[in-house]
Amino acid sequence: MTPTDSDRWVKTVTLPPPSLEDNTADADRLEAALKKALKTPTVNISPDLLKTIPDRMRAWNFRAKAVVFKDVSGRGMLVHLAPPDAAEALCGLAIDLGTTRVVLRIVDLSTGGHLGETVFDNPQIAVGPDVLARIHHVETPEGLERLNRLIVEGINAETERLCERCAIGRESIHLASVAGNTAMTHLLLGLNPRWMIREPYIPVVNRPDVVRAAELGLDLHPQARVLVFPNVGSYFGGDLIAGILHCDMDQREETAILVDVGTNAEVVLGNRHWMMACAGAAGPALEGGVTRMGTTAGPGVIDRIAIDPETLEFQIHTIEDQPPRGICGSGVIDLAAALFRSAVVDIRGKLVPERCGDRFSMRDELGHLTLVPANRSGTGEDLCISQADLDSLIRSKAAMYTILETITDSVGMQQNDLDTFFVAGTFGAYIDPVSAITIGMIPDLPLERYQSIGNSSLGGASRVLAEPDCFDRIHSIRDSITYMELNVNQDFMNRFSAAKFLPHTDTARFPSVTVP
Amino acid sequence: MTPTDSDRWVKTVTLPPPSLEDNTADADRLEAALKKALKTPTVNISPDLLKTIPDRMRAWNFRAKAVVFKDVSGRGMLVHLAPPDAAEALCGLAIDLGTTRVVLRIVDLSTGGHLGETVFDNPQIAVGPDVLARIHHVETPEGLERLNRLIVEGINAETERLCERCAIGRESIHLASVAGNTAMTHLLLGLNPRWMIREPYIPVVNRPDVVRAAELGLDLHPQARVLVFPNVGSYFGGDLIAGILHCDMDQREETAILVDVGTNAEVVLGNRHWMMACAGAAGPALEGGVTRMGTTAGPGVIDRIAIDPETLEFQIHTIEDQPPRGICGSGVIDLAAALFRSAVVDIRGKLVPERCGDRFSMRDELGHLTLVPANRSGTGEDLCISQADLDSLIRSKAAMYTILETITDSVGMQQNDLDTFFVAGTFGAYIDPVSAITIGMIPDLPLERYQSIGNSSLGGASRVLAEPDCFDRIHSIRDSITYMELNVNQDFMNRFSAAKFLPHTDTARFPSVTVP
Repeated sequence: MTPTDSDRWVKTVTLPPPSLEDNTADADRLEAALKKALKTPTVNISPDLLKTIPDRMRAWNFRAKAVVFKDVSGRGMLVHLAPPDAAEALCGLAIDLGTTRVVLRIVDLSTGGHLGETVFDNPQIAVGPDVLARIHHVETPEGLERLNRLIVEGINAETERLCERCAIGRESIHLASVAGNTAMTHLLLGLNPRWMIREPYIPVVNRPDVVRAAELGLDLHPQARVLVFPNVGSYFGGDLIAGILHCDMDQREETAILVDVGTNAEVVLGNRHWMMACAGAAGPALEGGVTRMGTTAGPGVIDRIAIDPETLEFQIHTIEDQPPRGICGSGVIDLAAALFRSAVVDIRGKLVPERCGDRFSMRDELGHLTLVPANRSGTGEDLCISQADLDSLIRSKAAMYTILETITDSVGMQQNDLDTFFVAGTFGAYIDPVSAITIGMIPDLPLERYQSIGNSSLGGASRVLAEPDCFDRIHSIRDSITYMELNVNQDFMNRFSAAKFLPHTDTARFPSVTVP
Repeated sequence: MTPTDSDRWVKTVTLPPPSLEDNTADADRLEAALKKALKTPTVNISPDLLKTIPDRMRAWNFRAKAVVFKDVSGRGMLVHLAPPDAAEALCGLAIDLGTTRVVLRIVDLSTGGHLGETVFDNPQIAVGPDVLARIHHVETPEGLERLNRLIVEGINAETERLCERCAIGRESIHLASVAGNTAMTHLLLGLNPRWMIREPYIPVVNRPDVVRAAELGLDLHPQARVLVFPNVGSYFGGDLIAGILHCDMDQREETAILVDVGTNAEVVLGNRHWMMACAGAAGPALEGGVTRMGTTAGPGVIDRIAIDPETLEFQIHTIEDQPPRGICGSGVIDLAAALFRSAVVDIRGKLVPERCGDRFSMRDELGHLTLVPANRSGTGEDLCISQADLDSLIRSKAAMYTILETITDSVGMQQNDLDTFFVAGTFGAYIDPVSAITIGMIPDLPLERYQSIGNSSLGGASRVLAEPDCFDRIHSIRDSITYMELNVNQDFMNRFSAAKFLPHTDTARFPSVTVP
């Protein structure tokens, strides 16, 4: 075993050649070497691989490169055998299985490096835009099969394209890992998620075992194995477990919080000793709220916005500097912060017509603020934000803040005690923490404590392909999480009401924010 | 779990129904119950079964009968789910995979009872009569595939017939166990045994993992699992491990010896603390020797023979009292003992013409003794035994005795110290210990220490289907056996020469035998 092997799923093994003194069978000899390399009490070798061992071992002079993996019980398994000096690519496929978007990344199993990446819309969108719509679709005839086929075929088609770009064959992919929410992973596994949305909200499985890619219909190497990240429950999926792995929360002495705002807001608080989690599905307003106005980032979409406090002129930045066509999540938060700072909205988030000037109009009995007039927009129409949009944003940010307050409070912590605040997801990547603090969406921590960690679900999924140690961590992370149901009780509602102001009714909590 | 469940592979489980307080996933809930019932740290549930769990658990009110099994690493697995009050048969198939004959037995997994049994010739006989001929056949094009197909199809066809007789469907068979010698199990697994007969005699695998019946081409329930008994090496197969299990040698405080005379002679000596084994393939004369003259037992075959010491009249018993057509193994040993007692042969086993009278003749320059004249035989020809046959028997019995002497000597024991002498196999079932002692084939122990245990290979194979505890014992038996290579050195040859007399050069070893 070369030194670099020790922390990869590819192991180069040299077997003692058989002799009259040591006449162990070929497979058992190989297993012994792999057990040592993988540090597992057993290594399973499938019947198909078994057949190839005697001739290969003799042809390769009792040396080989082996791709190995584990199952949930900690049992090792041999996945692939290659000649000891083979130049053949030995790859893994990390899958971030989002409700909206799916990201694939090819990982070099020998080095842990990334060979390429691709993003595509989850083809299940054709059936329903969100988790709930898709779960309802399962009740229709062949609904489950259709949803399963859509995602499996989607992954297959995109994997083929990605492999071409990376100049490898699909049969070079020996391992895959999938991090997604509980509903999405159920649909990929062909499992019926119908009981997840009915009290008491029971998934089919929390800890799916490692399966063959072929059993899932995935066109990789015929012997390839797939790890589907475990979930804590219907509302706390493998994507979050991957996120925790990605930011090493489970190994840090200091307490950190991880917030992932996607379709839901999911929050984990903890350190190497304990972890507490909750999900924003229980939040009354957050769901879909932040993103309702927003469009997916793309050319012409407003991602940064500021307002000159003197002239009240809007300073707008669009992606690729194209004429403005819409506004994305980070832009909406920037906008709300700017409107608040310049007193164009009041502390309730209501538009103040006299500060809006001719940007204000009433449409369908609802106040509107024009961000970009028709003659300068990319759509030929006014780009507006309505009072309803702003109200929705206020509810969303209040829900987010309330969730954060509730979870820290549940363990007797002050938000100020948080050592690190990890923000995950596309939303986290672009959000300006100053703006988010200004509107009171996130606590008023020193800015250096905020860390945007990008696609942490993909990060965790690729890490387990690069670092075998992460395999066991995934399952111990899952087992150490205490999931807290967010009860929308009087206490929660009181907190929520107090957070429905900019930045908060208790302004002392936001010393860095100057209320205009 | 009902009390009777605890020691079967069928477990009746009752799950705590899901609630808001306990919202574990259905599969994890079932796994937890099965782990407890099976006493394993994990229980794997295959993707196919996973899909069926939520609806079944709700339809069955969170109760079920589960067929479970284990793999070599001790991981549990769910094999089948049935309604809690189902009357459906839940069966296992025990296979004694002999080189010459294959025996199948259907075991009721719920009770451990036997539903039926069948015996058939190993269809690979068409390719070659013995292990060596079959291994050589593997070198021919498609040879391995042909041998594999012959045995798989043979088992399938006979299983179908046996199931019909037992009034069950093949899909009622959820578990199977296979005990056979190393070459036969390799051919069933489709593994190339070519390196087994070349120095240093390496099998492909010593401890095959539990596999799906479907992967082997066996037509049982689609989810059925197969345990192939492990082997100690090329010359000590799973049939012997099954034999040890069958007679509980691994659990006895007293030292016993187990002798299985089939195509080879295999011997295990030991108790719950240690086991020492060797196989008679290394014996120079035993191979084929005892059985060369013998024919398979059947109507008209001589199975008992005695000689009146006064008149020298032969008293012959044939199976079903038909006219004599041949002589089987036990008959040959009876014959040799009778010839020796009546001084028709001398202590070297040579025919004494003056004692043979007109039964003696020279044919092809070789002395012959007529057992049954043509006019009374079932074949219309004289039934004879030649001096060459007798010489061969002497070599065989000498080899057997030498092996027994060598193995007891290797651990510093006297043969008299043996508490129990288990004789396995068809041969063991019919042999008269008094005759075998008389010719010095086996040691002169009190008769009550001899125990004929019949088809111990089948016995062990069916026991592991009836008693889950036996599963782990199989592997610890395998690991605790010290296999002793029988070196045909000067020491062995000296012992062998001393044993080539009736009963032995050292007659003091056989006090019960009167030398005429």
